Amino acid sequence: MRRWNGWGDATTVVELPAQGAGFLAARVGVGRVLPDATLETALARVPASRLAAHGLYSVDVQDRLLHARGQSLPDWLALREGSLGRYPDAVAFPQSAEHIRQLLALAHDQDLCLIPYGGGTSVAGHINPPSSTRPVLTVSLAHMSRLLDLDEQSLLATFGPGATGPQVESQLRARGYTLGHFPQSWELSTLGGWVASRSSGQQSLRYGRIEQLFAGGTLETFSGPLEIASFPASAAGPDLREVVMGSEGRFGIISEVKVRISALPADERFYGVFLPNWEQALQAIRQLAQARVPLSMLRLSNAVETETQLALAGHPQQIAWLEKYLAFRGAGSGKCLLTFGVTGNRRQNALSLSQARQHLKAFGGVFTGTLLGNKWAQNRFRFPYLRENLWNAGYVVDTLETATDWSNVDNLLNRIETSLRDGLAAEGERVHVFTHLSHVYGEGSSIYTTYVFRPAEDYPATLARWQALKHAASQVIVENNGTISHQHGVGRDHAPYLLREKGELVLDTLQALSRHFDPAGRLNPGTLLQE
Amino acid sequence: MRRWNGWGDATTVVELPAQGAGFLAARVGVGRVLPDATLETALARVPASRLAAHGLYSVDVQDRLLHARGQSLPDWLALREGSLGRYPDAVAFPQSAEHIRQLLALAHDQDLCLIPYGGGTSVAGHINPPSSTRPVLTVSLAHMSRLLDLDEQSLLATFGPGATGPQVESQLRARGYTLGHFPQSWELSTLGGWVASRSSGQQSLRYGRIEQLFAGGTLETFSGPLEIASFPASAAGPDLREVVMGSEGRFGIISEVKVRISALPADERFYGVFLPNWEQALQAIRQLAQARVPLSMLRLSNAVETETQLALAGHPQQIAWLEKYLAFRGAGSGKCLLTFGVTGNRRQNALSLSQARQHLKAFGGVFTGTLLGNKWAQNRFRFPYLRENLWNAGYVVDTLETATDWSNVDNLLNRIETSLRDGLAAEGERVHVFTHLSHVYGEGSSIYTTYVFRPAEDYPATLARWQALKHAASQVIVENNGTISHQHGVGRDHAPYLLREKGELVLDTLQALSRHFDPAGRLNPGTLLQE
Repeated sequence: MRRWNGWGDATTVVELPAQGAGFLAARVGVGRVLPDATLETALARVPASRLAAHGLYSVDVQDRLLHARGQSLPDWLALREGSLGRYPDAVAFPQSAEHIRQLLALAHDQDLCLIPYGGGTSVAGHINPPSSTRPVLTVSLAHMSRLLDLDEQSLLATFGPGATGPQVESQLRARGYTLGHFPQSWELSTLGGWVASRSSGQQSLRYGRIEQLFAGGTLETFSGPLEIASFPASAAGPDLREVVMGSEGRFGIISEVKVRISALPADERFYGVFLPNWEQALQAIRQLAQARVPLSMLRLSNAVETETQLALAGHPQQIAWLEKYLAFRGAGSGKCLLTFGVTGNRRQNALSLSQARQHLKAFGGVFTGTLLGNKWAQNRFRFPYLRENLWNAGYVVDTLETATDWSNVDNLLNRIETSLRDGLAAEGERVHVFTHLSHVYGEGSSIYTTYVFRPAEDYPATLARWQALKHAASQVIVENNGTISHQHGVGRDHAPYLLREKGELVLDTLQALSRHFDPAGRLNPGTLLQE
Repeated sequence: MRRWNGWGDATTVVELPAQGAGFLAARVGVGRVLPDATLETALARVPASRLAAHGLYSVDVQDRLLHARGQSLPDWLALREGSLGRYPDAVAFPQSAEHIRQLLALAHDQDLCLIPYGGGTSVAGHINPPSSTRPVLTVSLAHMSRLLDLDEQSLLATFGPGATGPQVESQLRARGYTLGHFPQSWELSTLGGWVASRSSGQQSLRYGRIEQLFAGGTLETFSGPLEIASFPASAAGPDLREVVMGSEGRFGIISEVKVRISALPADERFYGVFLPNWEQALQAIRQLAQARVPLSMLRLSNAVETETQLALAGHPQQIAWLEKYLAFRGAGSGKCLLTFGVTGNRRQNALSLSQARQHLKAFGGVFTGTLLGNKWAQNRFRFPYLRENLWNAGYVVDTLETATDWSNVDNLLNRIETSLRDGLAAEGERVHVFTHLSHVYGEGSSIYTTYVFRPAEDYPATLARWQALKHAASQVIVENNGTISHQHGVGRDHAPYLLREKGELVLDTLQALSRHFDPAGRLNPGTLLQE
């Protein structure tokens, strides 16, 4: 069963190894455990709904609790404390586009706010009820998850918007295909959510971001269904797909998604290489991306992330031997782990591997075969589970991410890390910070930073610590030519930083679109665009 | 010097070989030559400007004549007749974004229409002055063509919007880079025009369409400069680049374009392969595109295009020998020529070639080496020049294009060809029609159809013939799941078909954007969206 106050299935547990806790204690101090509320306590705190019972939705208290928050750190703290503050007044589970249209009509007639809800995995406050005098109706798309159409000649598949990663892949794999979209949230997040928030998967280097995969579909709006026909490419004016993508529920509710799929690859492998230091590693990965070697993923951890990963991996004896070998080959302290993958046919993969190895060797890369690559592949969706046991050990972990041009990657990365590392200095608290680059492009790279700190004496003070860190890093991002999000979207948490990133005229244009689709402001208000 | 009433430089002449005229006479009848007007006659017909002289623009008669039309077939007929009907009242040649802003202010204060003008190569009526009580000011960006910034780490180059293909490539090549965007109009068309009309280049398979190359830039609007920052990727809301691209001058005037560039490739080759018939050729090219073999271009001519190309190539003796050899190898009548390219490093190119050959062999492909591929590369920008000598021989040639999903390519192609082939049957005229696929995607392909017919007894009747053909084919396209344009844009000629393609709600959204940027409708009215 899914955890009500944490990530994923309750039977999946990612242990923090014994030496892991020691590693963290040495870096940020001994952990502090805050008390968790029980589900019963949390349920007891849900206020009465402002909506009367209705056949189109549920006013059940547990439904309302379970759809009140996503997976951001503030969401986590609220759930562990059992105090969520605001809750939807009802949750609807439409089974068809027609149901969604009825809900839109209801929202119009009864002046409700609507919040579209996919997998509830937002880490930016997309689905949190706003403070509003209007009753809030959350629309879960969980019952619209079927494969509706498959065009095997054109490699196009049409799904309901609520299909989760496993639902997408299992329905496609049965026919010999894959979407190839694997964000870390894949187990729970949904196709409609990926489109609405411009998601990116771990193998975007081969399959593309959701922008390349989303071929068309339907957005249910107050004026009726906005249908976007699929073309392989078109020069017929501005591309409305790109208005639907990233709209985060502000313009309508996605009822159908057509995606570009691929035949299942014949061969896929992942490899680990250690680079002797960050400077060489950064150059290596940039040039590898720009050389267009057909790889399917590239992930470069900086020195602290590499050290942390090895410390938290368990198996200290094996790691010690590995580190001895690496040091002997020139990758000692300061070494950076690069993981990369090849996906496709065997001949192409063999050449891609050979070209990547040759390329990395020139930068002092020490190739370690598939061991660490396979480890990455096995654990690719497990990182979010770690928050649970870090929390139980007395630590808070969160991540944030951006993207910028190559000429700015090192500068921005350092500024972000510094802003976090020093972010709690006034309280005398240390923050453990590390980073990887995991989506690389010819023009630049994503920057994905993880930070670990200790809870304060209670929940409000812990939230205040997070707010200080998040604000400092977000400000650094938008003031230094980063985007406020490469893959998580804007939601309510990033909305305050959008003006600095995009400027007034861009925001005016988005506001004009919002007014066009939703003049009364009933659709997910506060998300994407501040109220 | 550039031809005032035709394509390209007057010193470039593409001859129609003797047997070419015979080939066409056998298919559509003996040509009919209509009389061309002289430049003097055409100039004498330009009416007085409605605008008084001003330091910001020229009211010179020749400037106004030379900026009144693009390169569509109606434009061609009007220019050859020397009667253009409508002319801009003035032509401005801004040298900076500041000049463009002054022109926008002038248009606002004096209630003018503005038409942004790049290379004047539109084949869809983008730059033709509308019928308007407002004076029309055409804004040529020819004097804004410089490379303004080069970020060699991020592979980003910033240009003025008026840089033509050769101006872009020569400024980049001097530094070891290429944009890799080579539309057939490359010699004359401009970067700003490519962005505004969503252009696609012949090697889009490697370099991407302009959508993939356009990283950001500035659109000068009535509310000020809309600046779009460049990120390698972003999840921060809808992508405004995609609103600028395809906006065709309706929302503002592009003053700066930042593009993603590539290092010049170490190796590039083009090859020719004959497939025995269309059915096998279509399957072969689809599967080749979907197998992701890293090719840089693919172009498949259908049987009639293959036959026509060989007939118009000259060298009948060599062609006869080639055809004998091909027939012996299984590619007789009905054979289809596939041209493909590999671009990159030698090892990758060798593997790509090997995989492509192996793949095509399974479909009966007869490989003929680089001879025909090199021929294609030499002549890649020369096809538009052929209109001149076909015209002089008494024939009209035009092309049209669309894109659709693979499952619909054959159906749509046949319907388009039939609509054109039978389009003048009521007049007892035959039309010679042939097609190629030249931009292939996993999802589908472009369809590029050429048609040759005879002029009628005078210019108006000849235009009526074209209108009948164009309308029939355009209607077929939008009624059969094609896009009205894959690479030429909408302009005024395709605007009437946009509603059928996109539906009312999409068009309403584009209208809302147009009202947002240009409430009074002064920017290129009638283009993209009908008045």
